[in-house]
Amino acid sequence: MEKITNSDKVLLLGKSDFLVDVSKGLFHTNHGTINLSKLVGKKFGVKIKSSKGELFYVLRPNINDFLDKRLARLPQIISLKDCSLIAGYTGLSSGYRVVEAGTGSAFLTTFMANLVKPDGKIFTYELRTDFFKSAKKNIDDSSLSAFIDAKNKDVSKGFREKDVDLVVLDMIGAEKIVSKARKALKSGGFLVVYSPYIEQVKVVCAAIEMESFVDVRTIECLVRDYKITRDFSRPNTTMLAHTGYITFARKV
Amino acid sequence: MEKITNSDKVLLLGKSDFLVDVSKGLFHTNHGTINLSKLVGKKFGVKIKSSKGELFYVLRPNINDFLDKRLARLPQIISLKDCSLIAGYTGLSSGYRVVEAGTGSAFLTTFMANLVKPDGKIFTYELRTDFFKSAKKNIDDSSLSAFIDAKNKDVSKGFREKDVDLVVLDMIGAEKIVSKARKALKSGGFLVVYSPYIEQVKVVCAAIEMESFVDVRTIECLVRDYKITRDFSRPNTTMLAHTGYITFARKV
Amino acid sequence: MEKITNSDKVLLLGKSDFLVDVSKGLFHTNHGTINLSKLVGKKFGVKIKSSKGELFYVLRPNINDFLDKRLARLPQIISLKDCSLIAGYTGLSSGYRVVEAGTGSAFLTTFMANLVKPDGKIFTYELRTDFFKSAKKNIDDSSLSAFIDAKNKDVSKGFREKDVDLVVLDMIGAEKIVSKARKALKSGGFLVVYSPYIEQVKVVCAAIEMESFVDVRTIECLVRDYKITRDFSRPNTTMLAHTGYITFARKV
Amino acid sequence: MEKITNSDKVLLLGKSDFLVDVSKGLFHTNHGTINLSKLVGKKFGVKIKSSKGELFYVLRPNINDFLDKRLARLPQIISLKDCSLIAGYTGLSSGYRVVEAGTGSAFLTTFMANLVKPDGKIFTYELRTDFFKSAKKNIDDSSLSAFIDAKNKDVSKGFREKDVDLVVLDMIGAEKIVSKARKALKSGGFLVVYSPYIEQVKVVCAAIEMESFVDVRTIECLVRDYKITRDFSRPNTTMLAHTGYITFARKV
Repeated sequence: MEKITNSDKVLLLGKSDFLVDVSKGLFHTNHGTINLSKLVGKKFGVKIKSSKGELFYVLRPNINDFLDKRLARLPQIISLKDCSLIAGYTGLSSGYRVVEAGTGSAFLTTFMANLVKPDGKIFTYELRTDFFKSAKKNIDDSSLSAFIDAKNKDVSKGFREKDVDLVVLDMIGAEKIVSKARKALKSGGFLVVYSPYIEQVKVVCAAIEMESFVDVRTIECLVRDYKITRDFSRPNTTMLAHTGYITFARKV
Repeated sequence: MEKITNSDKVLLLGKSDFLVDVSKGLFHTNHGTINLSKLVGKKFGVKIKSSKGELFYVLRPNINDFLDKRLARLPQIISLKDCSLIAGYTGLSSGYRVVEAGTGSAFLTTFMANLVKPDGKIFTYELRTDFFKSAKKNIDDSSLSAFIDAKNKDVSKGFREKDVDLVVLDMIGAEKIVSKARKALKSGGFLVVYSPYIEQVKVVCAAIEMESFVDVRTIECLVRDYKITRDFSRPNTTMLAHTGYITFARKV
Repeated sequence: MEKITNSDKVLLLGKSDFLVDVSKGLFHTNHGTINLSKLVGKKFGVKIKSSKGELFYVLRPNINDFLDKRLARLPQIISLKDCSLIAGYTGLSSGYRVVEAGTGSAFLTTFMANLVKPDGKIFTYELRTDFFKSAKKNIDDSSLSAFIDAKNKDVSKGFREKDVDLVVLDMIGAEKIVSKARKALKSGGFLVVYSPYIEQVKVVCAAIEMESFVDVRTIECLVRDYKITRDFSRPNTTMLAHTGYITFARKV
Repeated sequence: MEKITNSDKVLLLGKSDFLVDVSKGLFHTNHGTINLSKLVGKKFGVKIKSSKGELFYVLRPNINDFLDKRLARLPQIISLKDCSLIAGYTGLSSGYRVVEAGTGSAFLTTFMANLVKPDGKIFTYELRTDFFKSAKKNIDDSSLSAFIDAKNKDVSKGFREKDVDLVVLDMIGAEKIVSKARKALKSGGFLVVYSPYIEQVKVVCAAIEMESFVDVRTIECLVRDYKITRDFSRPNTTMLAHTGYITFARKV
């Protein structure tokens, strides 16, 4: 029943992986050209051969395929491990209403939109016009734009959303938004601040301390990859050792 | 508009924290008795005083409050950090259909149910009757039972679900279910195995290698908490250093 | 040839472990009394029975037995992992002349004295008289007092040692000693500062930047213990997650 | 008094760092030629200009300068953090007698020789002739050859050293040497095995369990570097995430 239409995006897994619009028709790769129009009417899961004879699996992409292979990264993104903890530790799920600042590349924006659908909404603010334009393209490309309200506005001038479940701040000067964030949150709602440096963590925690929040917690998340073979098992030799600190607080 | 009714659960945050049914009427704590019936008709976010004069904030609980303060833990649970990565790395969201074995205490079960609502479903299998009964109570208590189909069955005898988005295995002998899991998955769907020991990771990876999976990856997640004060910032002195390894694979 | 004399210390390994002076004669434990005088003339490596019939191995203690089982810990010590890196990263070895402040419990002091013997020396300063007295007892008990010059003095008033190989600072206000430390060091010598908090690291690094140092580096060391059995291998469930930051710099 | 002679090695710290023999006379670098003969009679600590006008500090090298800038690395070395813990956790110091197998590039060999001097000795075995030859060159270059007895022999055929303080194994098949190692150790002496893979840890621990050892412990060491500036402090983005596991055991 999962048939491919001309308006679908497909994930091509082969020697290289791609996420492409079927409507593109011909898709050129280092491994040969792929005639996407032949996929229409086929089922997700089929294989397709390129002009050079290379095989590609054709899958229905999910949010992570989009984030990994399609989203243009202009400013630094919040990595998937950190997005996962932000969502998991705040109970983010369908129906949540979220304020985010700044939008950046819209990585976390689209990640969250995928979780709050079909009833929730992400209100996201970005000050810089170049970032906003890039983010907007990513959002429009994500099939999740119905759940995102993106604004090219200075969040420090305030925002109108009320009774939101979550406010996420990933911006310079986040400490100045803490009080505004509290006002926008419903009782029991969460404030999350992502800080690349310990200095920002400190000023943010000081700002949080001035307001009525409980369960204040700052963490960092380390994901260690393993190499597992029949004979030799060990952690990978190198790892991503630092992305940022995540501070959580809950409004009362 | 968020008014408390007699059929609600409320989160009480004070010197101790509790998650209780308003219908309980009187709730006895070390910090005095709380008359819950007085809350009906009030708004979430109000404060209430115990008979000993202690103040409690009254909040609408979310999934994590339930997992943390209410779920009875009979067998070992999969911790929140690992649940978060399992969800985040597989794109788990509303509409997903998931097979899980075993149910254990239903911690991950209810965590996932909260994410797949309102259109998805968790089909969860538990062999041991004592675990199943405990899990069933937790599920019924979670307000998420509509999205969970819990069975007291031996998953190694097979399961009927087809075209599921995700199969999660947290059980002894997971390696014997890998092939069955693949059959149940839709193209592009994910298999996730949680293994407390490296020996189980190895046999699971060997079983995965025999089947058509791609993007096989084994990780562990370390969450480090920080103590942040105005003058002294440092990681906490001790930490949870190991829970389990998580192996991901994707069906093609 | 390694015969036990009445002036030796012996390590007793049994249901509990002890490091005792043979000259004590009778040694009372929860596992019965041990008649140490019977050990004189025996070889290290023998076993001895307590009055309750419990067996103890009798070994010649090394520095770590002393540090672990005998040294009285009044102020917080620098842990063995951090001592090991301080020594290993600075080339600390026989003949080194070292200035240390503060002495604390003399854990690092005796650890370093064991490495610089037979030709080197540790000059160690402690401001607080209570700490100094406790440290002095530990030093006298360590069999390494010939290689240690312990002073109950305020190091911030300066120190006379010149051309030393290493200056180690583990004290509040270490940043004020950086310039004096540089003067005391020979060319190519090392400054090491141990900081429990990131705030101290920052002021120390700022002070180091004002002086002629190269190879400035701040690290922390995490040691992860494993549980290895025939069937189940995994990291320990909890770990010591933070002790302190170690900053290294080299005088030019 | 620390004057440079023609037979010295000097450490040159500048835009690049070098460890060279003064007897070399002219030393050519990308930053110009350095006339080393001009250094004879000068004090360690002076600066010298290259033919291109670049300044270099001239320092007396220590063991780590040798290990870092001079030692030729044919096979994989044991990293400095692991060497430091091996030494620190076994009390390695002047006078220790140590058996090591295999020699590899002689990194750990020379690191340990620097610690056991002036009275101790490292007896080191290497089966492969190519490794042995490379190691021998490094040892001869290290100024520590008087404290090292290097043999191009198969350690599995046994070794004659007795009453040693420490046996270190870094070789395939280390588990077969455990029993021989025990015989060579004095009472209370240490066995250390370095294993890149968890599978080797397991067979080694199983072999250790068959013999009379106590205090068996397997660890891994993670060193995290920090970037500290006046405004921004954070761990480095990437890190060396795995080198090997270190197993310690003590003979009784």
